[in-house]
Amino acid sequence: MPLTEFSLIDRFFNAQTMSREDVAIGIGDDAAVLNVPPDQQLVAAVDTLVAGVHFPASATAASIGHKALAVNLSDLAAMGARPTWALLALTLPAIDEVWVQEFAAGFFTLAKRFNVALVGGDTTQGPLSVSVQLFGCVPKGQAIQRRGAQPGDQIYVTGTLGDAGLALRQILADAHCPEALALRLHMPEPRVHLGESLRGLATAAIDVSDGLLADLGHILSRSNVGARIRADHVPRSAAFQTQLSNTDDDWYALPLSAGDDYELCFTVPLSRSAAVHGLADRWQCAVTHLGEIVDEPGLKCVYEDGSAYVDRGRGYEHFRI
Amino acid sequence: MPLTEFSLIDRFFNAQTMSREDVAIGIGDDAAVLNVPPDQQLVAAVDTLVAGVHFPASATAASIGHKALAVNLSDLAAMGARPTWALLALTLPAIDEVWVQEFAAGFFTLAKRFNVALVGGDTTQGPLSVSVQLFGCVPKGQAIQRRGAQPGDQIYVTGTLGDAGLALRQILADAHCPEALALRLHMPEPRVHLGESLRGLATAAIDVSDGLLADLGHILSRSNVGARIRADHVPRSAAFQTQLSNTDDDWYALPLSAGDDYELCFTVPLSRSAAVHGLADRWQCAVTHLGEIVDEPGLKCVYEDGSAYVDRGRGYEHFRI
Repeated sequence: MPLTEFSLIDRFFNAQTMSREDVAIGIGDDAAVLNVPPDQQLVAAVDTLVAGVHFPASATAASIGHKALAVNLSDLAAMGARPTWALLALTLPAIDEVWVQEFAAGFFTLAKRFNVALVGGDTTQGPLSVSVQLFGCVPKGQAIQRRGAQPGDQIYVTGTLGDAGLALRQILADAHCPEALALRLHMPEPRVHLGESLRGLATAAIDVSDGLLADLGHILSRSNVGARIRADHVPRSAAFQTQLSNTDDDWYALPLSAGDDYELCFTVPLSRSAAVHGLADRWQCAVTHLGEIVDEPGLKCVYEDGSAYVDRGRGYEHFRI
Repeated sequence: MPLTEFSLIDRFFNAQTMSREDVAIGIGDDAAVLNVPPDQQLVAAVDTLVAGVHFPASATAASIGHKALAVNLSDLAAMGARPTWALLALTLPAIDEVWVQEFAAGFFTLAKRFNVALVGGDTTQGPLSVSVQLFGCVPKGQAIQRRGAQPGDQIYVTGTLGDAGLALRQILADAHCPEALALRLHMPEPRVHLGESLRGLATAAIDVSDGLLADLGHILSRSNVGARIRADHVPRSAAFQTQLSNTDDDWYALPLSAGDDYELCFTVPLSRSAAVHGLADRWQCAVTHLGEIVDEPGLKCVYEDGSAYVDRGRGYEHFRI
């Protein structure tokens, strides 16, 4: 397969990307040259999606293009950053023009919504995988880190949890998967604008990719604090509630441990917690109170009656398809 | 395979990376936060190496770590940029601690030589591939592009060409491959310092990854000019000359078309060409005059007697192992 065909793909992407004034040199040279405003810091993330690991072989090209960018947008949202530019490393077993066009449609539809310019990349032959490097900017010193949570801070999560995990469970079992759930798995919605609004409000934030307990755990360990949250307060979608009842183990396990939700979990000082409701209204996105940060190390997840939720370690991991 | 093992790798890399004062937040949060000096532009490149495509399954882990960074350093060198930070997307079939340690040794040995800090990454399970995203800085407006070549400019190339291609030929044929040639293939030396020195001197530059004729061709098409170069002036190493004689087709074909050399090809106005020799002395790296840029489109490659070198299109491509 001649290299020139892969170069054609690069040109195909180049023709579709939006322009931004801060791109001095985009696709087509040895590297991109970009202008970071002097009052801003650069924020950079990378996430790789591998066929058969992060998405099933049956996933549509458009959903792969969407998700490869979305998971990185979610990382930047958790930093309170505004996304700007992306690089795309695409490894394809062979050239399939229809596949590439649909992949690009999924990628660029999301990129345009958040004003992200594709400024470079590398297309190679090999087992299907997609690695997106996403850049953004944040005013100096205002990035939201994982390590800023303080005892007394209130813990919140955006949207609903467990939908992606339930969708995957259904798909792997060859059971019916409602469209609303499948979309949560294949076309996750990164909370970009809400994340930006958390600057100056949240003391810590993370995106829920590995599961709420694991990801909140990262905030706790980096902040040297503990937390107490309510298992029964975890928000579940209408579609989730239609499929499962609260006597099913997965009623708790999926929202708490399955991951792939790409919602934001964040902490806010009690004195400023009223501002959180304004965010929810402004961005038309549910924000649910889960509990609070405490001095004592460890994550306590309890039911209404105070009894402890026991994480049975279902072993939800990235490598599960 | 639990995710935690892959997270351990991330921590392992974190412990080894060097520190830079311009890294505000490195490995361990949702994204890295970096300070670009206000008088500089950000330069960003990505290159992916896939097992069985860009390196043979038999390549050592250390050489893969080295080469994955080296090919990106070479891209930045071709822009005249100074490298600063890297992200690493590493996809591994399984955890092999010895392999990862050797990979890291190869990566970090090169990173430290050029003061590059690893600031983030993503380790996933899947077919072996390595994608490095490299950042650098360049004073505003001083990046060297492919499109600046002008008629009358003199064309130069660093080092020697064809060694990597010859090494690969020998390895694929199970023939003897001298160590000097194998090193050129597996552990290429990016011309980082010399590339930086080209700022304000070179009108265009590219690194020789696809082969001299193809890469110089990119400069010509982007600059809307042509070139005339001498096939017999192309520099060959002592090891190359020991293996081949000038009656062998590959005596010309490998240096001109095989690629993977990661030397720099650049153009300099005739009036400033004397300065090129100073570069060669300063960086202890041969710089060879190949020919000149002309008005008439097309790349003419000729022998001493003026007859044309005919590129037989041996089809050297990335996907050749």
